[in-house]
Amino acid sequence: MKNAVGRDIPEELLADGVEVYQGLDYRQDYDYQKATPKTRANVRSDQSKLVSLKEAIEKTGLKDGMTISFHHHFRNGDYTMPTVMKAIHEMGIKDLYICASSLGKAAKDIVPMIEDGTITRISSSGVRDEVGEAISTGKLKHPAMIRTHGGRVRAIETGQVHIDVAFIGAPSADELGNASGKGGRSDCGVLSYANVDAEYADKVVVLTDTLVPTPNHPASISSIYVDYVVEIDEVGDPAKIASGAIRLTDDPRELKIAQSAAEVVVNTPYFEDGYTFQTGAGGSSLAVTRFLKPYMDAKGIKMGWALGGITEPMVNLLKEGYIGAILDTQDFDTASVASVHETPNHFEISTSEYANPFNKGAYVNYLDYVILGALEVDTDFNVNVVQGSDGMIQGAPGGHPDTSAGAKVTIIVTPLVRSRIPSIKDRVTSVTTPGESVDVVVTDNGIAVNPQRQDLIDSLQAAGVELTTIEALKEKAYDLVGTPKDLEFEDQVVALVEYRDGTIIDTIKKIKS
Amino acid sequence: MKNAVGRDIPEELLADGVEVYQGLDYRQDYDYQKATPKTRANVRSDQSKLVSLKEAIEKTGLKDGMTISFHHHFRNGDYTMPTVMKAIHEMGIKDLYICASSLGKAAKDIVPMIEDGTITRISSSGVRDEVGEAISTGKLKHPAMIRTHGGRVRAIETGQVHIDVAFIGAPSADELGNASGKGGRSDCGVLSYANVDAEYADKVVVLTDTLVPTPNHPASISSIYVDYVVEIDEVGDPAKIASGAIRLTDDPRELKIAQSAAEVVVNTPYFEDGYTFQTGAGGSSLAVTRFLKPYMDAKGIKMGWALGGITEPMVNLLKEGYIGAILDTQDFDTASVASVHETPNHFEISTSEYANPFNKGAYVNYLDYVILGALEVDTDFNVNVVQGSDGMIQGAPGGHPDTSAGAKVTIIVTPLVRSRIPSIKDRVTSVTTPGESVDVVVTDNGIAVNPQRQDLIDSLQAAGVELTTIEALKEKAYDLVGTPKDLEFEDQVVALVEYRDGTIIDTIKKIKS
Repeated sequence: MKNAVGRDIPEELLADGVEVYQGLDYRQDYDYQKATPKTRANVRSDQSKLVSLKEAIEKTGLKDGMTISFHHHFRNGDYTMPTVMKAIHEMGIKDLYICASSLGKAAKDIVPMIEDGTITRISSSGVRDEVGEAISTGKLKHPAMIRTHGGRVRAIETGQVHIDVAFIGAPSADELGNASGKGGRSDCGVLSYANVDAEYADKVVVLTDTLVPTPNHPASISSIYVDYVVEIDEVGDPAKIASGAIRLTDDPRELKIAQSAAEVVVNTPYFEDGYTFQTGAGGSSLAVTRFLKPYMDAKGIKMGWALGGITEPMVNLLKEGYIGAILDTQDFDTASVASVHETPNHFEISTSEYANPFNKGAYVNYLDYVILGALEVDTDFNVNVVQGSDGMIQGAPGGHPDTSAGAKVTIIVTPLVRSRIPSIKDRVTSVTTPGESVDVVVTDNGIAVNPQRQDLIDSLQAAGVELTTIEALKEKAYDLVGTPKDLEFEDQVVALVEYRDGTIIDTIKKIKS
Repeated sequence: MKNAVGRDIPEELLADGVEVYQGLDYRQDYDYQKATPKTRANVRSDQSKLVSLKEAIEKTGLKDGMTISFHHHFRNGDYTMPTVMKAIHEMGIKDLYICASSLGKAAKDIVPMIEDGTITRISSSGVRDEVGEAISTGKLKHPAMIRTHGGRVRAIETGQVHIDVAFIGAPSADELGNASGKGGRSDCGVLSYANVDAEYADKVVVLTDTLVPTPNHPASISSIYVDYVVEIDEVGDPAKIASGAIRLTDDPRELKIAQSAAEVVVNTPYFEDGYTFQTGAGGSSLAVTRFLKPYMDAKGIKMGWALGGITEPMVNLLKEGYIGAILDTQDFDTASVASVHETPNHFEISTSEYANPFNKGAYVNYLDYVILGALEVDTDFNVNVVQGSDGMIQGAPGGHPDTSAGAKVTIIVTPLVRSRIPSIKDRVTSVTTPGESVDVVVTDNGIAVNPQRQDLIDSLQAAGVELTTIEALKEKAYDLVGTPKDLEFEDQVVALVEYRDGTIIDTIKKIKS
């Protein structure tokens, strides 16, 4: 069955009323009743929630076939998930569904558990590195579900995914379960991804290496959602959680792209006092933030708020008074970890507040600009940020489709060619973000605006910004490095790429070995 | 049908599986599935939520027979509820169920709406003044339901009460609906009672007189729960919301009671470093806080956290370093309004976090001491804080039964006799808080400890604190002013007194006219 971006989705994969992608506004004003957890009343007992990890797993009633969840705020330094999965594996529990916010390098220990049937289903935003390879080569029993950050909240809140037990690693927690992204030995700043897990899972286990006195406020996770608190040796490796400092690019090509993207921003009509902004953490994306400063000075305006994953350049702009507020869902470096809850107007928000398409209005809906990267862009402006040029799953939709849908101007920054492989193509290997939500593609070889945004074309041309077309960019890329060869895949679908509203936008097939 | 405090509850009033009071721990470890609202997905629209009050009421689909809710953080200065009800009344909508956190003097305008059938059902904690009189004299079509603060959250979260439309007055809000108890012209400090309304109502309307730029963080009510934002002239009268300063008693009788209560606290085993504490806002209760300071100095200890409704003496102790943290659900004076979110470690919490008996453990469960007032106490230690000596409903359970159940030591402070009416009686007019959750009664004529707490009797006697019995206190009161005459009531039940777990602890009948 062909979907609205022209991808053929096998009907046998569309279980349980799941539909194929129908377009950006398919579910606008969709009425539904939220799902809920089963819970247990604690009328007046002050019994301690502190138990050992094994006790916690036993007391939650975890058994074969259940769904468990994890967050990825510890990023490459996460010890929580490996610790929990090791204990579950030793207890012999099988056929588990892992509902993760993302799975990166720190999740590599679960590959043998995928192979031995401990884990048979996975949903995640990012699926990278060893786990990405295991899924790409067909080792997971059921196709993985690749979800956006907003889509994960939606899936849980609609009941599409019911979490039996949430395991929430926290840099600090008190004995009642109040958990924070700060106050410990391995701070990650915020716990935004885990809010929905705490609210919707039947049982919630908080794991920490730093027990602090009650009340551990401000708490990202409230004790009223927590069944058990487990003290473990280390929740993470601080050196790998937050980068000491995100590399500020000095690559001339990246700087050129960033400068061009900044010119697009400042020459479109939303660049007014109070404009709202998000940028990814890639080299070019980050550099855009720096380039905006002189333009704000010149125009005498300030940014209203900045959203999403946060890095030091944004924190600095806040401290210097260029931004009204930061609404933070993830901290990528030590500066942003240190700043959240400390710098005035640097606030933690939940992932539902950030990007959930099924609440009454997430912050992404109110974004003026978002600057995002891409692995591939096609001539329909569809973007792939999940599948590498070798066909391997190595990326994450994250908030890419969420912010693209919400922002008034979505700008993709990408080099025209990477390692002799064109980034602009006739057809992306798989669609992560539909072209109808992408407005501008900025490369080191020119800027193309989506023809559906004639208003932006007019503004940019009036300002003297030179534009080309997406087809011309593709031709130029092909001229430089030749027409790319189609990758070869087997028939087995190893992953479904879910759009944020729950429809299927693409499938990923097993790499031909 | 007789309940566990010996009160006869007519079976015909026990609709829908409601049971009579069975004892404090009846629902401990009760498993249930939480209720949920219907909601509407706002996938990516950035359409303004700002509408007029009439538009908001129309757009929510409010119609005859529905349930609407209000909070009482504006206390006697609330203009929000009268403004909303006036508009609803003008639109001719009838047979409404008002689910309020409390109804005081500011709600007097709804009396004619009770009389004309606009309002036919009410649940509330406090029902005072004109509304209390209307209910007491049988004007409301169905019996009112008197709920505790924790019980209200439970009733909503279990689905016993389903709120169709929540109207949430806020001192400040942004256009997205982020609402705060501060930042406006009529600050009330916190919006704790309204959290559950926002999360569980199908439709949520925020009303404010102070629109502020987005994001209005920290937000007590998140925009993701808000359907409409309405700007009204005035949400409240600042002079009546928070008292300039709560009267610090110089009444020798109140001071004597407070001093005795402080002696009880300091001579029981929980008065250790990190002890936890709550006090009501009455004269004697408040004074206890002041008397504790020298004892803390002498023992070299500090309070871990203070809970509940907050006043200046508690804020001062926090600022002076005598308290680790304040967990705030209501602000009674301008000092506490000013302090919350500003003084380090003065935190706002939700009413679920405060006192909900059906979550995984509210703060009341971890209280060491609570000091509470009483209108009447009987020789079974049952307490009445709802019905006046004339039989009129004039009080509120508030957090009384919640904290009494949770605290390790529940201390009731009351003069033995008020206006020639004994406070200690054979039988309270109606039971609000069951005697099994009351440990100590402190009067100006002696201290009685509940015989079920032999441990406290031993501690206090060892410390040389003079004790008497509740029977002796009653006899003394009767000797002083005579045996009270039983009030006369008609057969009509005008209100049910619900215990925090949803069982019925007593009924209130129509006053004989």
